[in-house]
Amino acid sequence: MQKPVIALAMGDPAGISPELTAKVVALEEVREAARIVVIGDRRVFDEGAKVAGARIHELEFQDLPLPQLAKIQRSVPSKEGGQSALANYRQALRMVADGKAQAVCFTPFNKQSMKLADPSYDDEIRFTAGVLGFKGVATEFNVLEKLWNARVTSHIPLSKVSASLSIENIVEALELTTTALRAAGFNPPRIGVAALNPHAGDGGNFGREEIDIIEPAVEKARAKGLPVEGPYPADTVFVRAKGGQFDAVLTMYHDQGQIAMKLMGFDRGVTVLGGFPFPICTPAHGTAYDIAGKGIANIGATRAALLLAAEMACRRAA
Amino acid sequence: MQKPVIALAMGDPAGISPELTAKVVALEEVREAARIVVIGDRRVFDEGAKVAGARIHELEFQDLPLPQLAKIQRSVPSKEGGQSALANYRQALRMVADGKAQAVCFTPFNKQSMKLADPSYDDEIRFTAGVLGFKGVATEFNVLEKLWNARVTSHIPLSKVSASLSIENIVEALELTTTALRAAGFNPPRIGVAALNPHAGDGGNFGREEIDIIEPAVEKARAKGLPVEGPYPADTVFVRAKGGQFDAVLTMYHDQGQIAMKLMGFDRGVTVLGGFPFPICTPAHGTAYDIAGKGIANIGATRAALLLAAEMACRRAA
Repeated sequence: MQKPVIALAMGDPAGISPELTAKVVALEEVREAARIVVIGDRRVFDEGAKVAGARIHELEFQDLPLPQLAKIQRSVPSKEGGQSALANYRQALRMVADGKAQAVCFTPFNKQSMKLADPSYDDEIRFTAGVLGFKGVATEFNVLEKLWNARVTSHIPLSKVSASLSIENIVEALELTTTALRAAGFNPPRIGVAALNPHAGDGGNFGREEIDIIEPAVEKARAKGLPVEGPYPADTVFVRAKGGQFDAVLTMYHDQGQIAMKLMGFDRGVTVLGGFPFPICTPAHGTAYDIAGKGIANIGATRAALLLAAEMACRRAA
Repeated sequence: MQKPVIALAMGDPAGISPELTAKVVALEEVREAARIVVIGDRRVFDEGAKVAGARIHELEFQDLPLPQLAKIQRSVPSKEGGQSALANYRQALRMVADGKAQAVCFTPFNKQSMKLADPSYDDEIRFTAGVLGFKGVATEFNVLEKLWNARVTSHIPLSKVSASLSIENIVEALELTTTALRAAGFNPPRIGVAALNPHAGDGGNFGREEIDIIEPAVEKARAKGLPVEGPYPADTVFVRAKGGQFDAVLTMYHDQGQIAMKLMGFDRGVTVLGGFPFPICTPAHGTAYDIAGKGIANIGATRAALLLAAEMACRRAA
């Protein structure tokens, strides 16, 4: 089978993204798994390679030079930095849309720079949908080694979570999760669903969402053939998953999953944008302005993002 | 200094409580830390010692014989089992109230047996307050090794959490936590406060409880001299605590703490009932009916409960 082509968009130029980009394309394991095309300003990349001490031999590069490179200072958010990250990422998405690559990866964006570049910028999912003209349902997965986490609600107040749950959106999330896990090679995946209330509501004593919404959603998903179990109390579902019982956990709200994933080391993990027609992966950590330029940034999550994108692209081709 | 006396109430007779009780009083480390008085049915204890293979030399025992011992079957909840656990515990509390002991420990209760024994039974805190005629504020702490967790709300629906938070009850919880940690030897303790909303509300974008309630509560607590920091996003506060930044985390709701604590191994931990005039400790795990009578129950949490009670009783005396 031919190696998949991954469009690797360089993220925020002021943080650790340039050094991570250079370091990851130098990894033999990554070069064996995919043909990488780096997209960014070549001068920024070369500076990153210098910082990382990365030996770059062959390299496919799409140069998108920054008109005002001098305006970018290390460890400082800037409009120009955000514009560059967005331009690189947009170009990577278009490469796949045009059939010139099969997956996209990007190194970390800086939220503040993004907002300076585009005040209407919300998050990667909406931006991606906008560039691709994608009208379907997309979601973010957090992946740590072999454990995936998806959520039904995300950046909303905790007080609004209960009212935002429905049988429909839980089933939809379970369908997206099943599809994404199959695409990553879990056949069949095993998905555990978290309850909402303490002790899963204790039979209705501490809330009825389990009885009225989550259990019917799990039943409906199972009736559709989805490999789903639960709901389990939120404080044990990750213990089960960690013990190997599940490949993925669907949580009802942001922190339910993030508390567990971060504690298990999710900063070493990968964020996958799921629902789009091709794989999009990025390291879960941020731009780490505090260590930018020191050459000490850990490559683990970026390496994992590239390898996962390559794996998913291969399976999609097959 | 004289050794503290700990009244150790044998919990549910049908589970692992008898074997744990026998095993823990046989531990030299525990006998060195405290004088233990076991309270329960002597025949149940002796059977537990046999199961555990525990060698009991000297033993102070208050025999509360079960009138209908034959009705209790291993691994089956029963009214008689619940009555026995409650009678033992009540007696232990009275021993301290009467000045004959300085701390109470108990081995696990079975919730179902408790409800059979007393349909109005709610939880250990209310029962304890009832026996002691205690009118103050009490709360449950979860302790895993050197990390404590307290919460502002507990067994309520997630949808009611926001409306249940107030500056007053957060400050009250911080006072209780500070007092409990000082009593356990943290001087001064370092307490991290969890936020409620994802990303701590992101400056009000995903909820205003941080701005309107939690931050003012932290300020008020600090103005009172309490060693408190935060609020921190819930998905990072335990990562900080695990890394050594805090001795205790105050969470806003049940699962916020329990997801983290259980993942870190809280089943090996200790539950402390705080706010009462003397230390009350119990292993965090349950009666483990699935392994009762097999002699394989892990003594770690019960050992930790006794040692913590002894430590707190010593400090209180000093």
